[in-house]
Formats: sequence, structure tokens, C-alpha cells
Amino acid sequence: MIWSNEKQKQLQQDIEALIDWLSQFGAVSNNGVSRLVYSKEWLNAQLAIQSRSMENGFSSSFDEVGNLFVTLEGIEDEVILTGSHIDTVENGGKYDGSYGILAGYLALSFLKKHYGQSKKTLQLVSFCEEEGSRFPLTFWGSTCMTKDRTDFPFTTKDKKGITLEQAMKVAGFPPENIHTMRKKEKIDAFIELHIEQGMRLESSGHSIGIVENIAGIYRFTVTLEGEANHSGTTPMHLRKDALYSSALLIQWLTETAERYGDPLVVTVGQILAEPNTPNVIPGKVTFTIDLRHPKKQVLDQFRDEMEYKFRQFSLEKGVELNITQWLDSSPVEMDRQLVNLSSDICQTQQLPFRFMTSGAGHDSQILAQHYPTLLLFVPSHKGISHSPKEYTFPEDLTNGVKVLIELLYKLAY
Amino acid sequence: MIWSNEKQKQLQQDIEALIDWLSQFGAVSNNGVSRLVYSKEWLNAQLAIQSRSMENGFSSSFDEVGNLFVTLEGIEDEVILTGSHIDTVENGGKYDGSYGILAGYLALSFLKKHYGQSKKTLQLVSFCEEEGSRFPLTFWGSTCMTKDRTDFPFTTKDKKGITLEQAMKVAGFPPENIHTMRKKEKIDAFIELHIEQGMRLESSGHSIGIVENIAGIYRFTVTLEGEANHSGTTPMHLRKDALYSSALLIQWLTETAERYGDPLVVTVGQILAEPNTPNVIPGKVTFTIDLRHPKKQVLDQFRDEMEYKFRQFSLEKGVELNITQWLDSSPVEMDRQLVNLSSDICQTQQLPFRFMTSGAGHDSQILAQHYPTLLLFVPSHKGISHSPKEYTFPEDLTNGVKVLIELLYKLAY
Repeated sequence: MIWSNEKQKQLQQDIEALIDWLSQFGAVSNNGVSRLVYSKEWLNAQLAIQSRSMENGFSSSFDEVGNLFVTLEGIEDEVILTGSHIDTVENGGKYDGSYGILAGYLALSFLKKHYGQSKKTLQLVSFCEEEGSRFPLTFWGSTCMTKDRTDFPFTTKDKKGITLEQAMKVAGFPPENIHTMRKKEKIDAFIELHIEQGMRLESSGHSIGIVENIAGIYRFTVTLEGEANHSGTTPMHLRKDALYSSALLIQWLTETAERYGDPLVVTVGQILAEPNTPNVIPGKVTFTIDLRHPKKQVLDQFRDEMEYKFRQFSLEKGVELNITQWLDSSPVEMDRQLVNLSSDICQTQQLPFRFMTSGAGHDSQILAQHYPTLLLFVPSHKGISHSPKEYTFPEDLTNGVKVLIELLYKLAY
Repeated sequence: MIWSNEKQKQLQQDIEALIDWLSQFGAVSNNGVSRLVYSKEWLNAQLAIQSRSMENGFSSSFDEVGNLFVTLEGIEDEVILTGSHIDTVENGGKYDGSYGILAGYLALSFLKKHYGQSKKTLQLVSFCEEEGSRFPLTFWGSTCMTKDRTDFPFTTKDKKGITLEQAMKVAGFPPENIHTMRKKEKIDAFIELHIEQGMRLESSGHSIGIVENIAGIYRFTVTLEGEANHSGTTPMHLRKDALYSSALLIQWLTETAERYGDPLVVTVGQILAEPNTPNVIPGKVTFTIDLRHPKKQVLDQFRDEMEYKFRQFSLEKGVELNITQWLDSSPVEMDRQLVNLSSDICQTQQLPFRFMTSGAGHDSQILAQHYPTLLLFVPSHKGISHSPKEYTFPEDLTNGVKVLIELLYKLAY
């Protein structure tokens, strides 16, 4: 495609205006946005997208759990799908998943206006829930659509004590309908455009990140039990200090991650000491480990090494150890043809791009297990995300939309 | 004194019965005791001691803040004082300060029965508050008595929202009376008998610990600020992980304490990471340091070395550091003559004893700044204290009472 200055300027104005428009739904102070799944703010935002799409001549419908589909019917039934999610974390930013929805809407509008009916059907999906910020339902929308989910925690309560069941009913999605949902077939490709949520694109000066794989995530909870004792009457050599032991293991984890090298990352994000009072030696410490790498084999190797080290440590120091793995999300490869197609587009358009791994999880990792899938990134300024300070420069937003338009055109026309 | 088997057996029965008796006041499940200052349970216990003492022919009165005095009038006005405290931590044990009160009561009763009126006046004090477990009022009773206290946090609230002022009024001690309190004069000696709350006596096989000095305590709060970031999208080398930094400092503290050697102890008892969630790199960590040693010079040296190390670390790692010292309690020496007198008694009685430092704080450290003071320990089984599992063997309890009786006899008759 030839991109005149005028066309690009128009795209930039449109995407900026759309982002400002959608950020009104669930706006909180200081530029923040809170749209938790099935809340009034979330429902109003989904309905606003639906109504705007229908006014613009698209057909649109919700599925049983609240995923919103906007459709430009093609000559054929096969679907080229794009989209992301509009739910946010509490006090999140304007971009995150919203950008992918609005860019998709803009792309479909642009293609409809300039090229008319497509050969394949073009569809935009606004997944009802990706974050898991109200209920423990990360990837709820996409896993319901692909029928990957076997657990439906209807009785789980949010912070206000409202159950998932109640929340779905109030939003107009009776939970019993889940059981008769059918998996979407005939999807030839899924493309998700998202902000990076990291600072690699910005620091390397690239406009587009073409994700080759999404890292697998293993999460563990480690509990160390030593002996709680009086901080004044227990000599150093008689202590079984669970916090000191934890400090040594946290150090080992960080240094071992550095030894494995990029792209492996390991994070101890949560720690709880007991009794957690200044004059008592901590008798018990619990901490979490979040381990990520794009190769399952490396994740397994790190886990094995860690478990061996921790058990050895526990024997040597006489502290009791418990390690529980509670998340085992395998790495996922993006579709090679889609990766190549998007890199061709970037080259033709002279957009600086890089191939990369996504350390963060996205709906794409669910869809990729069923359909040829691609995840594209635009830069996040300073790498900030899940924060009112989340920001992507307008030209980066526009570049992302351009690449998405070209991709959808090549796939659907 | 000659201790017949019969007399010793009687003392043992008496002290065991007294401990069981007092532990009814504020009894909680599983052998625990909760007697927080100015509570109904605490007041009932103080009143029960008063009434029992008066029935036994002692005079007894409360001072303005609720310290209870039981008096055996001597020929002279000078006072030989013994005592401790009956307030407990929440869900504490039966022994702790209570043992010192009950042993004192038993000693006064024994001396009155066998030796009649003393030359000097013998007095037992049950300090109204030592633990600081309801309000931040550690050593409240003793510091009010010695007029060491300049802060009266009347508006401070307990967990239930009751202010100190209200709590004092309800217990019958109008807080305004504090301002007209006078310091007790004419105290020739103060003896406190207490359980060790550590395991040194038990592990070295000694019956009596003669405290030569009480360790000074410095307490600090350390805050480290790095950068909270996404655990999946931030490579290891771009992180400023406040928890990893804290782990390195906790390790340094422990290893440096080991290098200084016994009796220096350092404890990181409390830690708080923010935002404390598994998938975010901790941006901020706050932890406490509790540092103890019987020599002020060593405490100062450790503090200087620590501050230098921490500041250097902060510069190297690019994490912001704040260290605040919020407790500066200097070490205190016990009275040398009283130490010698008690070791003579132990030798004569062939009781295995050792000289030691108290790592824990006690009312003695307040009294010692005004009057010749001695602190004596009996063993704590397994070193456990501030717990329903607190336990001292009956023969150890009895040995402590015997030494106290002999001391009071030598000082007062």
C-alpha cells in the first residue's frame, strides 16, 4: 500500500481520538482507567464499541460469556480475526489491550472504506477478560472461546463479595449458557496488536516488535520453616532464621537467572514473614517465584536445578522446605508464515522492527494453540504498563495500525 | 539459711500453686494467658494479688498509674524492693513477669513468717505494664515510677480503638494524676527475678543466671526503593529489585553479626515488600533491624559499619536508601555488690550458676539507672517464651525463690 502523508495523519488523529474516547469508560483520577470484567464501566465500554460499529455498518454480537465480535462479512466463511481485550487492572492505563481493539476497529473501517467487501470474513474480537483483576480468571474470554477452560469458578467472590455468577447475571450473561458454548471454527488467522509493556523496543529504537514466541511461565510458592525466637536472647549460632534462609535463596535465584542469561527471568514478587514483628526471629517465611523463558526445556532445567539446590539447602540449614508449583503455562510459538508476512510488510514500509519474545502473557497464547496466530508490539514509553502513566507515542500507535491494516488486507483480500 | 527438704518441698508446692492461681486471670485456650494493661483481666489479677496480700497481713496500695505495692514495714524507712510485671503479650505464657511477682510474694510471706519484722522495709512491686503489647508503652510502669518518661501518649489507640486515656479511666487510674506523681526515694536495692526467655541456662546446665548487664538495643527501619516492573518483560540486567537488594543486605547483617561474635545479635524480624504481588518486581521494601550488645561502643561501631556499607551499596546498585533509628536503649550494668552477694549465696547453696548478659529488656534496666539493681534468671525450658508453651521446671522455680529469699534476708534483716 502507498501511505500518503494525509492518510497517515488521518490514521493518527483517528487512533488518538478513539483511545481518548474509550478511556472515558471507567476513567479514574490522574488519567487512570478501571474497567473490571462484568462491571458497569466494562459493560458500557463493550456496548459503546458495539453501537459505534453497527452505526458504521458492521454486524456485531456478544457470545455467551461477553466476548464481543464485530464482523465485516466476506465472500467466504473463513475468518481473519484480530483483537485483544478492554478489561484493565485496577487503576490501569488507556492503552494495554484497548489499543488492539481500537486499532482493529480502525483497520476494519479503513479496509471497508477503501477496499469494500473482503474475500475472507474480517472479524474483530474484544475478549471479555484477560487480566484476571476482578476474579482469578486470566484469559477467561479467550479460553471460553477456544473451549480450553474446564474450571468455572462461579462461586468465587470479588473484593466486594460479589460472586462470578452474580456478576455475569447482572451484566446480562447467564452463566449456565457457558456449557452450551461451541468453539469457533474456520478461523484462518488471529492477529493481536498490543503495547510491549517493556522497554526493549524503545531502548533499541524499533517501531514494531514481531513476537516469535510467548514465554512459558512457571509459578511456585516456597515455604521455609525455621524457629521463631526472641531476638535478644537467642545467640546467632542457635538460630533457625527463616528470613535469613530466604535471603540466601533469593540471592541464589537472581544470580542463577543471570547465569542462565537473557531471556530467562525470575522474580520473587511476594514475601510474607511470620510473626513479622521487629523483636522476633522469623520462624516462617513464604515467598513466590515467577519463572519465564520461551523454551520449555530451559524452564524445566531451571526448575530441576532450583529444587535440587533448595532441598540441599534445607538439609544443610535444618529449615523445613515446601515448594509448590501452582502455574505451569508452556511457551507458545507464533505462526511462522504470519511472522514472515509481517516482517515483509515492515521491510517494505521501511519501519524498523525486531523479532522478540513476549515475556508477558496475552490472549494470543491461548489462540495460538488452535489457530495460526501472531502477536505484534508497539513501544511502551519507559516500559511502563498497568499504570495511569502508560503511554505510547502517536506515531508508534499509527505505525502499529498501518502494519495491522496491511496484514489484514494481505490475508483477507 | 538451712533448707530442709520439707521447707523446699513446701516452697515448690507454693510457687506452683501460685502460678496456677494467677494464670486463671486472663486464661485463654491451650494454657495461654492474655493480660493486657488496664484490661479487666489485668485489673482482676492486680486486685487479686492485693487482696491476697492484705489477707496475709501486708499493707498494699496502687500508685497513680497502677503499679501495685505490697509492703512489709521494717524498722527503718529504706526499702528493699523486689518485683516484675504481670501484664503479658497476647496469648503469652504463665511465667514471664508473673514468676517474679509470685516469687516475691512468697519470699515476703516466708520471711514474715520465719523472721518477723525486718530492719529495712521489704516491698514487692507489680509494675502495671512492661510488654507494650496493648499500647506502645514498653516499661510504662517502671518509667512512670522513676519519672524517666516524658511522653504520655494518651490519645494512642489499642487495636479496638480505645485510647490510653479511656483505658486508664476505666481501670480507675485517671491519667491527669500522672503529672503529680513523685519518684520513689529511699530504695536501697531492687531485685528482679525472671525466667531467662532464652536457652543458655538450660543448655549449659545452670540453675541460676546472675545478670551482670542488660544489652543495649538499637532499632532501625530500612527502606529500599528500586523500580516496580513487570516480572515478564524486564530483563534481569535492567531491574532495580528492592527485594533482591534487601536479601543481600540481610545476608550482610547476619554474616557481620557472626563476625562480631557472641553476645552481639542482629535480627531482621519484619519485612514488607511493595506491591507484594507474584508478577511484579518489588519496587520498595521496608525492613526492621534489631541490634543488641551489652557494650555501647560495640553497638555504635556496628551501626557505623552498617550505615557505611548500606550507603555504599545504595550508590553501587542505584537503589534509594533510607535508614531511621527509632530506638536507642543504652546497655545497663547491674550493681556489682548485688551480683557478688547473689553469687556467694549460690555458692553456699551449691546451686550451679553463671554470670550472663540479658539480651531481653526488663524493668531492671530502668530501675538500674536510679537504684542498685540486680536481675536474676531461672531456666526457660527450650528457651521458649511469650508463648503458651513457656515452661520452667518446678525445681528451677524453687531454686529461684530460695535465692531471692536469702538475698532479701541479707539485705533487709
